[in-house]
Amino acid sequence: MAKAASPGADLGKKGMASRIWCVLDSNGEPVTLDMDKAAVMHRAGIHARDLRILDPLLSYPSTILGRERAIVLNLEHIKAIITAEEVLLRNPTNEHVIPIVEELRRRLPLQTLENGAEALALLERTDSKKSGRKSSVQITPFEFRALEVALEAICSFLDARTTELETSAYPALDELTSKISSRNLDRVRKLKSGMTRLISRVQKVVRDELEQLLDDDDDMAELFLTRKAGSSTLTPALLSNFPASPVLGSKLSAVSRTKSLASTHGSDDDVEEVEMLLECYFMQVDGTLNKLNTLREYIDDTEDYINIQLDNHRNQLIQLELVLNAATLAMALYSLVAGIFGMNIPYPWNDDHAYIFKWVVVAGCMLCVGLFSIVMAYARHKGLVGT
Amino acid sequence: MAKAASPGADLGKKGMASRIWCVLDSNGEPVTLDMDKAAVMHRAGIHARDLRILDPLLSYPSTILGRERAIVLNLEHIKAIITAEEVLLRNPTNEHVIPIVEELRRRLPLQTLENGAEALALLERTDSKKSGRKSSVQITPFEFRALEVALEAICSFLDARTTELETSAYPALDELTSKISSRNLDRVRKLKSGMTRLISRVQKVVRDELEQLLDDDDDMAELFLTRKAGSSTLTPALLSNFPASPVLGSKLSAVSRTKSLASTHGSDDDVEEVEMLLECYFMQVDGTLNKLNTLREYIDDTEDYINIQLDNHRNQLIQLELVLNAATLAMALYSLVAGIFGMNIPYPWNDDHAYIFKWVVVAGCMLCVGLFSIVMAYARHKGLVGT
Amino acid sequence: MAKAASPGADLGKKGMASRIWCVLDSNGEPVTLDMDKAAVMHRAGIHARDLRILDPLLSYPSTILGRERAIVLNLEHIKAIITAEEVLLRNPTNEHVIPIVEELRRRLPLQTLENGAEALALLERTDSKKSGRKSSVQITPFEFRALEVALEAICSFLDARTTELETSAYPALDELTSKISSRNLDRVRKLKSGMTRLISRVQKVVRDELEQLLDDDDDMAELFLTRKAGSSTLTPALLSNFPASPVLGSKLSAVSRTKSLASTHGSDDDVEEVEMLLECYFMQVDGTLNKLNTLREYIDDTEDYINIQLDNHRNQLIQLELVLNAATLAMALYSLVAGIFGMNIPYPWNDDHAYIFKWVVVAGCMLCVGLFSIVMAYARHKGLVGT
Amino acid sequence: MAKAASPGADLGKKGMASRIWCVLDSNGEPVTLDMDKAAVMHRAGIHARDLRILDPLLSYPSTILGRERAIVLNLEHIKAIITAEEVLLRNPTNEHVIPIVEELRRRLPLQTLENGAEALALLERTDSKKSGRKSSVQITPFEFRALEVALEAICSFLDARTTELETSAYPALDELTSKISSRNLDRVRKLKSGMTRLISRVQKVVRDELEQLLDDDDDMAELFLTRKAGSSTLTPALLSNFPASPVLGSKLSAVSRTKSLASTHGSDDDVEEVEMLLECYFMQVDGTLNKLNTLREYIDDTEDYINIQLDNHRNQLIQLELVLNAATLAMALYSLVAGIFGMNIPYPWNDDHAYIFKWVVVAGCMLCVGLFSIVMAYARHKGLVGT
Amino acid sequence: MAKAASPGADLGKKGMASRIWCVLDSNGEPVTLDMDKAAVMHRAGIHARDLRILDPLLSYPSTILGRERAIVLNLEHIKAIITAEEVLLRNPTNEHVIPIVEELRRRLPLQTLENGAEALALLERTDSKKSGRKSSVQITPFEFRALEVALEAICSFLDARTTELETSAYPALDELTSKISSRNLDRVRKLKSGMTRLISRVQKVVRDELEQLLDDDDDMAELFLTRKAGSSTLTPALLSNFPASPVLGSKLSAVSRTKSLASTHGSDDDVEEVEMLLECYFMQVDGTLNKLNTLREYIDDTEDYINIQLDNHRNQLIQLELVLNAATLAMALYSLVAGIFGMNIPYPWNDDHAYIFKWVVVAGCMLCVGLFSIVMAYARHKGLVGT
Repeated sequence: MAKAASPGADLGKKGMASRIWCVLDSNGEPVTLDMDKAAVMHRAGIHARDLRILDPLLSYPSTILGRERAIVLNLEHIKAIITAEEVLLRNPTNEHVIPIVEELRRRLPLQTLENGAEALALLERTDSKKSGRKSSVQITPFEFRALEVALEAICSFLDARTTELETSAYPALDELTSKISSRNLDRVRKLKSGMTRLISRVQKVVRDELEQLLDDDDDMAELFLTRKAGSSTLTPALLSNFPASPVLGSKLSAVSRTKSLASTHGSDDDVEEVEMLLECYFMQVDGTLNKLNTLREYIDDTEDYINIQLDNHRNQLIQLELVLNAATLAMALYSLVAGIFGMNIPYPWNDDHAYIFKWVVVAGCMLCVGLFSIVMAYARHKGLVGT
Repeated sequence: MAKAASPGADLGKKGMASRIWCVLDSNGEPVTLDMDKAAVMHRAGIHARDLRILDPLLSYPSTILGRERAIVLNLEHIKAIITAEEVLLRNPTNEHVIPIVEELRRRLPLQTLENGAEALALLERTDSKKSGRKSSVQITPFEFRALEVALEAICSFLDARTTELETSAYPALDELTSKISSRNLDRVRKLKSGMTRLISRVQKVVRDELEQLLDDDDDMAELFLTRKAGSSTLTPALLSNFPASPVLGSKLSAVSRTKSLASTHGSDDDVEEVEMLLECYFMQVDGTLNKLNTLREYIDDTEDYINIQLDNHRNQLIQLELVLNAATLAMALYSLVAGIFGMNIPYPWNDDHAYIFKWVVVAGCMLCVGLFSIVMAYARHKGLVGT
Repeated sequence: MAKAASPGADLGKKGMASRIWCVLDSNGEPVTLDMDKAAVMHRAGIHARDLRILDPLLSYPSTILGRERAIVLNLEHIKAIITAEEVLLRNPTNEHVIPIVEELRRRLPLQTLENGAEALALLERTDSKKSGRKSSVQITPFEFRALEVALEAICSFLDARTTELETSAYPALDELTSKISSRNLDRVRKLKSGMTRLISRVQKVVRDELEQLLDDDDDMAELFLTRKAGSSTLTPALLSNFPASPVLGSKLSAVSRTKSLASTHGSDDDVEEVEMLLECYFMQVDGTLNKLNTLREYIDDTEDYINIQLDNHRNQLIQLELVLNAATLAMALYSLVAGIFGMNIPYPWNDDHAYIFKWVVVAGCMLCVGLFSIVMAYARHKGLVGT
Repeated sequence: MAKAASPGADLGKKGMASRIWCVLDSNGEPVTLDMDKAAVMHRAGIHARDLRILDPLLSYPSTILGRERAIVLNLEHIKAIITAEEVLLRNPTNEHVIPIVEELRRRLPLQTLENGAEALALLERTDSKKSGRKSSVQITPFEFRALEVALEAICSFLDARTTELETSAYPALDELTSKISSRNLDRVRKLKSGMTRLISRVQKVVRDELEQLLDDDDDMAELFLTRKAGSSTLTPALLSNFPASPVLGSKLSAVSRTKSLASTHGSDDDVEEVEMLLECYFMQVDGTLNKLNTLREYIDDTEDYINIQLDNHRNQLIQLELVLNAATLAMALYSLVAGIFGMNIPYPWNDDHAYIFKWVVVAGCMLCVGLFSIVMAYARHKGLVGT
Repeated sequence: MAKAASPGADLGKKGMASRIWCVLDSNGEPVTLDMDKAAVMHRAGIHARDLRILDPLLSYPSTILGRERAIVLNLEHIKAIITAEEVLLRNPTNEHVIPIVEELRRRLPLQTLENGAEALALLERTDSKKSGRKSSVQITPFEFRALEVALEAICSFLDARTTELETSAYPALDELTSKISSRNLDRVRKLKSGMTRLISRVQKVVRDELEQLLDDDDDMAELFLTRKAGSSTLTPALLSNFPASPVLGSKLSAVSRTKSLASTHGSDDDVEEVEMLLECYFMQVDGTLNKLNTLREYIDDTEDYINIQLDNHRNQLIQLELVLNAATLAMALYSLVAGIFGMNIPYPWNDDHAYIFKWVVVAGCMLCVGLFSIVMAYARHKGLVGT
């Protein structure tokens, strides 16, 4: 780790074509550096493949990768590399990243407690524990403080996006329900498509990353960089305690070799601590996902409702049209009768006028009303027209 | 644990801005205290992160968390912290929480048996077992009695909500089936959206919490606070039984270190007891979820039915309209004939009157009926109009 | 187990408010007893929580629970507790339960072989095996004989319900396809809703119970009551064989303690036997579920088909209507011409009569046919009306 | 296994009511036998329950079961029992089974290589390996040769069915797309229902059987009948090599007892060989399933397309109808004007004739065209009628 | 491996009917050979079954298979066999395969670093590590270099296809939204069907192959051919270090035998390296899959939108039609009145002309407007026609 000073020299030789990174160590002072790929790879001890994940041009999905000497974080706009001593943050000038730099500056130094009371309570608790069985967990390691800041930032970022979406979606849906218009439909379509993208982003973080980490103790142990850095010297020391018993020693190592990585890289207590940290943010993102899913269900239900509503509306329109058509038909019959008598062909009983006119008018009227009544009665009998 | 008396002093210094908690110990006497965050964290020995889960303002999903010295419960309105000696219940004045306080008061003391017969039977059973291999499980530990009360309360709460929903949903659906109106549609939409939310709440409890706990023996062992409290002293004692055999001792510890947490924190029997407790409430919530799913399927089937029904209704309406249109067309033809003869243009055979009028009327009538018959026959031939 | 005689006394004190149980032991003779909760709990050695699962008033989902000294079965109407010596069956007077009592009576005694040939073959097989490596599996334990009867009963019960449903569903669907009427729609809706409920019941048994048991060797070992009853004395005996080798003994016990329950409660061979038993009924229920799923797919396909069919029918209706409308329009044009000449306003060329009348009639006719042709050609050109 | 000759005698006593089986041993000569249930159970060493799976009357789903001394195969029409020495095939006269008998006859004897080149290459490879670490795998065991033939037969059978379905489905769908008629709809419905059934059959084989076997090393080891037959004598022999070291011996057995069945019944290499065999056919069936899923997606997409197409068609029909209706209305207005002047009520300006007639005709015409234009302009303004 | 020269002789005997393969070893020089099946099987040491997977005529799904001495790759057009010394690539003349040959030629030789800076940084890193605990991982083994080239090629191939699809799909969808025509519908249908096929191909690679490999440490260890080749000599060597302790040695081997293949074939560090390699490409394909899923959601949302849009459009058309029908009916009433007075039947008040004509015209007009108003008011009251 003594080579951390050299990349500056490398940079001088290569020119300034590379990208800007913000580096914070445990003092919490952000230093903005202009490093090329090789310098970053060298500084953080990661492979070129892993660095490519943070490339803003390639749209890699959200990831938390535990590597040999670093945690590679790619959570939406937060693209960072966390080592045991420092945090490298890409694009520190991005408007969403600036508050994270602020938060890191505030929380990375060891005095991370928010108010005096908490500090007091915690110290007391720590005291009470010191006499108990666990005396080594009083201070959260550097990498976890950095990881917590990043997770907190991404969780509240996603939650804020969700709340924004909710405040615009629910009124839009209610408006659509009361009035179906192309404008409202288009607005809801845009909201839905935004929601779909947000759900997939949240799910990517919650399900594919946090849940997977939580499910796999080895992967969680991988995140414990401080412990890993120390463990390489630990095991020989442990073995040297039993110099006279080679049988046991090798047996122990055989057993531990057959065990998963967890036991090599960190004890179960450490894993438990990472687990509690991740669990907490997992629940928060899960709550956000719940809200989004409720919104999705609401949109789907509204769509179903609108579909049935439109169908029902149409049927009622056609029912009224049917009544109008029946009336038109009845009148057409009357008109036909009138038309027949309006022909310019003379007929024998043309002379007996007065009473015939009345008869024709009354008979036509009865014919008209009769036809209309028959059609409507038939429709009502068949259940086509409501009561 | 001797510091449990100090938070009162802390409170005095901080003012009364914090929240009200109800504390019950194994005497079952509820004491309402006004504690701030630090006091609660101190008293229950939990982290600030875990306490945040119980914040009523942040809508965290349902959770059962096993921590070092406490179980953190966030089940809908039940927000509690259970330690090995006491239960801390948030918002004891909430109308849904009051009966839980009552139940805790009744069941937390050791005399938890409901009627004499059960007590008798249980004692006999306990006797018969004492001579058997398991003599240590006669009394359910404090934390499990508290957990059982909380689970029972949340299960019956969710079941009651489900029953309420069912009693209003089924009649509403049947009414909608018999008469599709906007009012009925809107009512069903509201019920459906309520059902969706209830399902997601029940699923959260059943699938994500109880099922996950049941699947993971370690997590269940985590809940056994009493055992954990005792185990720290147990292991050294066990080892001290073999002072002369360091090989075996260290081997044993090596083996146990490679084992999961379960063996350290509690024997398999304990896990079995927690499992039986959780299994029982899991099944109850699962039954509730089953009811809700049946309701959901019923709603979906009803919607499909209504859609087909509406479509079928519309087709029948259009069929009738078609018949009316055909009749209108036929009459229009007749009217046309009459109209032609009604023109004020004189024509040669205007004089031979009597028989021509009859011919025209009869011919027109035949034309009219003929056209109608042809159209209807065509429609029937194509299967457009039913028999 | 000597207390099995006492519940009668308990009953006397409590009155007859409790429920009727049918008890069968290995003699196969059913005894109907009126036992209250405490008596049953005492007799079967189960917890009140487990007994509540069998309560007919609470609708718990299907369950197979392996408990310390009993298997608790809640499979639809079969509500039973199986111990290593007897079967307790709830509601023996239920019409579906009576044949199960009959079957238990016939099969619980050791002579379970159906016909001579099988018995002969089995005996020979047993002989041939006795000389082989496994000589202890010739007799199925009591609890498995009882479990097999219960599983067989529930499997054929569900299969019979499925067959009933199939025989009524397929004709109803084909009838609906040929004629879409409200009556047929309603019938299919009822069948579908019945199918949904049956699927959820079968799935509950197959997926959530049998599959889960098969996936978990420990849970299967839990069912081996006879073995469990014997194992408590076995382990000390085993250990006492190595009195001179404390190192090995404790090592063995350490190893076995770290092992899952399976090795303590029964060897792998036993688990294999339970597995084969359950596997067989799992496959049977799986076959039933397959049938139901095929039916569901058929119903869904039919619904899709009906929807497209209805839509297509409507389009054809509207096409015919369009033709009629076009004809009406054309005639209206002709009528209009006739109406114009029918006005009682004298016009100059009123006198040159004979040829004008013909001209008007012919021109009107051509106008009428022309308009109709243009409209139809346009519709055909746009692909709105088929060839 | 010396009792294999006796079933013939058993058969004689029971009559010929039982079923026909085809038996092949490693000579590859098929012998058709008429055996009853007991004889088969005896011969193959399986339980009555397992034999029932092969009953052609009961429709059990596809299964591959590894039993103590036999593999029970129920793959569609292939109902077989494979032991370490012979294959029992049910219904050898079925048209689909005959080629399988042929194939078994050809491949069961050890000369299974297809052409000389392959044989040469294989032998060379075997040579090269003999000097390597694995010298015992040159010959595939009898049961795997039989299993491979069965799997190959079922895979190509299902693939052939899929290809058949594809060749009839794609043209039918394209025809339906170009012309939606009841006949085409019905044809696609039948194809879809056939596809659904085929998918469920293929999925049954691929997912529920091959995948499950591949996921579980123990189940695969169960299939290795030859190894299992030998292993019973192996373990004692192995132990006898260390007579002076009881500590180690028992420790070894303790360890092996805690291990899964795999290590007892066959080494990992064997499992690897079965895995490679099954993996290959799994991939083949998976490819078939892929084809079917692509077909299903195509059908679903086509249905969605048809639905939108029908809806769009209907809208265009209604648009044209709207134009016709507007035209009819406009003409009705003109007709009305003509009708008013056609009344036989004398009016004052009846005498100034010549110019009035022209005025009325022109004014009526303008009224008519004006009304039509207003309606169409309104519809266009509202976007109801396209440009 | 000395037999690699002989297949040429085999080929001579069989003729040239076999296929063309491109062979590259660690020099990176591609040699195009014409080898038959047996020669390939011999050269790569794989089974005929595995070779069949690469058959271009049989459409096997995408696969990565770890075999004894080779990795069999079938990723879309990349059909290759990778051994520890050489890569065999099928169809090297395929246009998509040529760039892969180029890339292999460039990267297979050990100088694989792209620019000096990276090389420098890497070397430094390697230096710093040499003094650390891992000094053996500085060079990626041959098979992994080849595998990385293949994975990179397939990932960018699939990503390019996805980008192509996206650039044509989004404009097509937006065009469809603004104008629903058969041509646009058909175009979207074709795009959707292409997308479905691409999704299934990507999912096949990402989920079924890379994810499965990543989930299973044994399968990943299988890919480590170089290590496997060396391990056969390693174990005896290891054992020979403890010649005096047979107890321990056999114990060790017993333990290792009970362990999974991972410990035999390669240490956990190796698996970790493969894991990092695969993880990187898994994420890339996962990103591609994400894009496709977003596109799918967009298409689905657009379809839903179009459906509601079409329905809404239709309802508006029918509303306008209703207004037209109402107007037609009102005019028909007026026409009827006019028609009645137009009959050629004389009536008594025929003589009082002047004022009667006006009265009739005005009354008819009021009747007409009144009827229209009543119908429209009714429709508006029922909510059928919007404001």
